[in-house]
Parts: sequence; C-alpha cells; structure tokens
Amino acid sequence: KIKDDKLVDPYIQELRLNIEQIEKGGYDHFMLKEIYEQPKAIRDTYRGRLLREQGLIKMAGVEDNMKKFLNADRILIVACGTSWHAGLVAEYVFESFARVPVEVEYASEFRYRDPIITDKDVLIAISQSGETADTLAAIKLAKSKGAFVFGVCNVVGSSISRETHAGAYTHAGPEIGVASTKAFTTQITVLTLIALRLARAKGTMTSSEYRTHLLELELIPEKVERALESDSTIKEIAAIYKDSPNCLYLGRGYNFPVALEGALKLKEISYIHAEGYPAAEMKHGPIALIDEQMPVVVIATRKGHYEKVVSNIQEIKSRKGKIIGIVFEGDTEVKGLADHVIEIPETEEALSPLLTTIPLQLLSYHIAVMRDCNVDQPRNLAKSVTVE
Amino acid sequence: KIKDDKLVDPYIQELRLNIEQIEKGGYDHFMLKEIYEQPKAIRDTYRGRLLREQGLIKMAGVEDNMKKFLNADRILIVACGTSWHAGLVAEYVFESFARVPVEVEYASEFRYRDPIITDKDVLIAISQSGETADTLAAIKLAKSKGAFVFGVCNVVGSSISRETHAGAYTHAGPEIGVASTKAFTTQITVLTLIALRLARAKGTMTSSEYRTHLLELELIPEKVERALESDSTIKEIAAIYKDSPNCLYLGRGYNFPVALEGALKLKEISYIHAEGYPAAEMKHGPIALIDEQMPVVVIATRKGHYEKVVSNIQEIKSRKGKIIGIVFEGDTEVKGLADHVIEIPETEEALSPLLTTIPLQLLSYHIAVMRDCNVDQPRNLAKSVTVE
Repeated sequence: KIKDDKLVDPYIQELRLNIEQIEKGGYDHFMLKEIYEQPKAIRDTYRGRLLREQGLIKMAGVEDNMKKFLNADRILIVACGTSWHAGLVAEYVFESFARVPVEVEYASEFRYRDPIITDKDVLIAISQSGETADTLAAIKLAKSKGAFVFGVCNVVGSSISRETHAGAYTHAGPEIGVASTKAFTTQITVLTLIALRLARAKGTMTSSEYRTHLLELELIPEKVERALESDSTIKEIAAIYKDSPNCLYLGRGYNFPVALEGALKLKEISYIHAEGYPAAEMKHGPIALIDEQMPVVVIATRKGHYEKVVSNIQEIKSRKGKIIGIVFEGDTEVKGLADHVIEIPETEEALSPLLTTIPLQLLSYHIAVMRDCNVDQPRNLAKSVTVE
Repeated sequence: KIKDDKLVDPYIQELRLNIEQIEKGGYDHFMLKEIYEQPKAIRDTYRGRLLREQGLIKMAGVEDNMKKFLNADRILIVACGTSWHAGLVAEYVFESFARVPVEVEYASEFRYRDPIITDKDVLIAISQSGETADTLAAIKLAKSKGAFVFGVCNVVGSSISRETHAGAYTHAGPEIGVASTKAFTTQITVLTLIALRLARAKGTMTSSEYRTHLLELELIPEKVERALESDSTIKEIAAIYKDSPNCLYLGRGYNFPVALEGALKLKEISYIHAEGYPAAEMKHGPIALIDEQMPVVVIATRKGHYEKVVSNIQEIKSRKGKIIGIVFEGDTEVKGLADHVIEIPETEEALSPLLTTIPLQLLSYHIAVMRDCNVDQPRNLAKSVTVE
C-alpha cells in the first residue's frame, strides 16, 4: 500500500522459469501434466534435504529454529482447501513421529474466533500460492500474539513467504491447473521431512524406524511412477461412473484426509457432489445415502486399520453400494469384495497418502474430461483465493 | 462379561419413564414430537443448574472436579455423529468463554491413532445413548493414560455414564427417532453451562457478560418455541426443494458446526446428499458445485461474521444458486438477497446454535415426509452404534 507521496524504488524480480514449465508439454491439460510431474516434484522437494546415507534431514528453516519447535506445547496448522487437507495429514504424521499435539484449523475460522495463541505456540501456515488471504490474515494474527510462524509455500517470494519467520518451500514448480495436485503431495513431503527431523531431535522414533522412513520416502517418487501406471484401469472406472450425481470417499487414519482431498478434486473439476468421511463415521449418518446408485471410493491399504475398513466395505456392499477400492499391490481380500480395485505400491503407513492420492487425482481428471468440463479452469474457481 | 463360574447377583433397575414419553402423543412421528419437545428438554436440562437470580451455575460433577478442569492444559472432546457436532459447537464456546484450548476428535479416529494424552488432560465424551462403541473405547484409552474423563450422556446408567469419572446428564427424556434432535440441543446446553461455570471460576468473562449469558440461556426455551412457529414457512420451502438431489449448508463460527448438523439431518432421513461447510471454505472448491439446481442453506444471523456471510450469499447468487437464509427476526439485508428466509429470535452469538438448529431440523423432517421416507427409522441406520 502506498501510504504517502514518497517515491518508491521499483525493483525487478526475475522469475526462474523455463518455457517448458509453463507449457503443457504434450499433455492435454495442465492438470494431467502436473499429476505426471509428481515424481519429479517430490524428488525436487526432498533433494538436498533428505540425506539418507548420512541419516540426516537438513532444512535451514527448521534447524535455525529448532528450539522453537522443541519447546512448543503444540503445533497449530492453518490453511484452506487442499492445503488444509495436507495439514490434516501432517497432524497424524507429527503426532505419531514427534509426539507433539497438533491442531489443524481452517484459516478463515481461526482468524475470526479470537484463538488462544501464546509465544509458546508454533504455527505452520500452508499455501501453494503463498497469497491465500485468510491464511495470510491468520499469520498476522498469530505473529501479533507472539507465536513463531513457519510457512510452507510453493511460490518463491510470495506474501506468506515474506510474512513468516521462517519456512520451507515446496519445489513443485509452477502449478497452473486450478485443482491442486503436485502442490498437495509436495506439501506432505515437506511436512513429513519436518516431522522426521523433530522426531530425531526428540528421540521419539527408534533409529531403525527413522531410517526406514528416510529410505521409504526416498523411494516414493518411483512408487508414484508405478501408481501412475494404473491410468488405463482408472480410465475404465471413470467411464462407468462419470454420470453419477454423487460419490462418497472413505478413509481412516493417515488416509482420512486423502478421502477428503479425493472428494474435493471430484467436486472441483467434474461438479459431481463428492464427500469425504472418516470411514467409521459412516454408520453415524452417511450410510443412509448408500444405494445401488452410489459409488464409494474406499482407501483400504493393508497397513492401517485394514480389517476395520474391510468391514466398512462389507457394510456398503450389503446396501448395494458400488465399491472402488484403493489397495496395495497383491491385495486379495478387498479385491474379492470390491467392484473395482486400483493398486498402488506398498509403503509405510505414514507415507501412504503420497501414493493413495495419485489414483484419486487421475479418477477425477478422467471423469471431468469425459463430462466435457474445463479441467484446468473449472467454473467459479480461482487458482489462488486472494480475497476473503 | 462373565469371567468365571461365580454366581452373579442380578438386580432390577427401574426406569423412570411414563407412558407419554415413549408414545407419539398426537405427532405423526417421534422425530417431530422430539423437535417440539426441545423447549421443555432444554429447560429440564438447565433446571436446578442455572440459578440466574443468584448468578450461579451448580453442577456437582463439575464442582467436585473443579481443580481438574482448571488445571487442564487443554480439553479434548470425543464423540461421533451428531454428538461430534455438539462437541464442535462446544469448542467455540469453551475457547471463547473459558479461554482453554479445545480439540474435538472423531472417537473412531482418536482411539486408533496413539493420541498424546497425559494426566493433565480433561477428556469430555459426548453420547446420547451412552453406548457408542467408539466413544466408549476412546474413554477407556484416555483413562488408561491418566486423563480425567467427563461424560455427557442422555441415558441414565448407560455404559459411558458408568465408565467416566464424572459427568452431567442431559435431561432430554427418551429420544426414539433415529435422527438426533433434542439430544443435540440439550448436549449444547450442558456444555454451555460447563463453559460458563469455568469462565466464572477463571475470571475469563466479565461479570456482565456472564450474567447476560445466564439470562439469555434461560430465555432459550421460549425462543425455541418462537422458532418453531416458522413451521408452515419451512413446509413451503420443503415442498420446493424436496426433489433436489443435492444441497449445501454453510455457516461460520459458532454456526459452522450447525451447518454440518443440518446437512447430516437431511442425509439421514431424506437420503439427499447434503454437505456442510464453513462458509469461507466454499471458494476453495465447493463453489464449483453451485448452479441453478443447487439449494444452499446459509446461516446468516446478524451477530457473527454477518457481512462476510452476506458476501458469500452474493457469490452464490451470482452463480444462480438458490439461497435459504436462516436469519434473526427483523433482518432486511439477507431478505433482499435470499430466495427464502426463515426467521429465528435474536440471542447472543454463542447461544445462537440452540436456535439456528431448529429450522434445519424441521426442514429435513418435512422434506423426508414429502419424499415418503421412514423418518423415525431411516434405512441403514441404528439409533445407537454399539459396534465399531
């Protein structure tokens, strides 16, 4: 804002982009290109930070503020939309790895409710664009109350990256499709790295668990590649359900937020009313919606409440719902029950959101294309929400 | 469980019910009867506890454990379904009145995620039946980690009332309709009383605010009566939207959980796919769903982010969505924008969920009746979920 008549020194900030990054590169849509860029985006995000051979995680923004992180009674995460879902995944990861209570808030709700914040709190703000108005306002509020504020953004030099005390960029490259894909998985990558670093500092993970997770995280990009190979199966499933007026997404634990995110993707680009739920809550209401018209996408990976989710699948089948199961390779039990299964490579439970997300992105993409929707610029939506 | 062959002494517990309580008493359905019983149910719930003239709140379970409540670093609330929504309302009320951080968790997620609980934590478990399996398991887990566990149940002598260290009953009387109505408003009443008592003990509310809230809470039953007078207006609106395949519910702050609850009611008994959202999140995805087919119920009471919600209404109108506004009596601004408005009496913002809920209950009731649904026993649902 210009507050007086003083002359302002303009400066030029050169963007480090090359032309391929902002062209579709042979893909029909930016969204599809960005889905396929995820192996590279995740690798770019952990490169130089995840030093598996030395067993180290190096992130200057975390290292320089380690005391703040370690002294925090709790970590607050604020975000909107897809970033809020990444925050929910991080809640599970932080609590499990680093044993610190985490609370995730909608930025829009947080900023207006006179939240209880002290100088012992650490607030992590997540935003792809770094310009989300509600998140920016939440940051200013938290700073005014003395909290330490850490940003996770994709756009270098964005408002949020400038307003926060420290931060870590996701290195996803420009995300042009309005429906966020690679921003989501790289946000989870950054947050997982931080949680692992804190777990190491606090001694809340055994050395072997820690090393297993470093190794598995390093392997995620090639497993994402393999997950992407299910594309033709997913396309067939998309053709069957493209005219469904409704859809449910269920998951538990680490994959409950992925269910929310999968539903949001379908809403955003195909205008099908999809809703995500923690699987066990289904019995407390949403199960009334189930009939032979209702496709239900269930994340049912072998690690993580598998038996419970299988029993949810049986409940849905007995009400004639159609099941699309997201399972680990080699799964037989869900395959025997579900109408369709999509396989992803096996990984650690805490890292599975990075893989379970992939088929859900492709499913909504193909359905939207088949419905002739404008995938990259869905109606009513803006890429970054810079108004309240 | 019988663990050995010892003889067990059976005992008879007499239920204090009279026959009117478990008959429909002239109403077509239990749900409708229970909706209309809310003035009495809320009054029964605060009777003997809310002593407005003395400026006192008396609840033995709270009084006897005041130290636990006052020493708590945070309060955890666990519940499922409608009770979880009451917990979300309580989060706003506790944080605002008593300035203690509150975290609300799905019982099913909480129990399986190795949550961080210490003997400094207070856990409040909410369940109408007192038999909800996931909530009961969450209680046992929290107890095993040393937390103080407080129950809010409706059914006297239920498992949860026996498993908790202390508690406060809602005095809603038997709730027979599967879709919870009077249990929800009486849960909020109990939780508001506790928050007010703690606020008084901690000095986090001025004496005049405290007294205003006591007075306003005492007036809620007669305001619920007045809210019920909109029944014929609501019936007309129901007739217009009864065949909608989808519906959105929006609210902010104290009324964000009411939006979730309103959507759940419609799902449960009419099988329309309704979804609740915090109003400001709409721009981050769900707004893509809005077209001339989509009814949007917006809670837009003058107290509480009114201008922001009005601007959300304008966004929806410009995408041709149909607006049903829930407003305070005498509102003119929303009336000028919305397709329909339903008026409720004005009250304090923090108490408004007790009134905004009423028209949403009636709306789903009438839509379900018009769709020939089995209101009291919706398909696939059980009154209390005693399995995982």
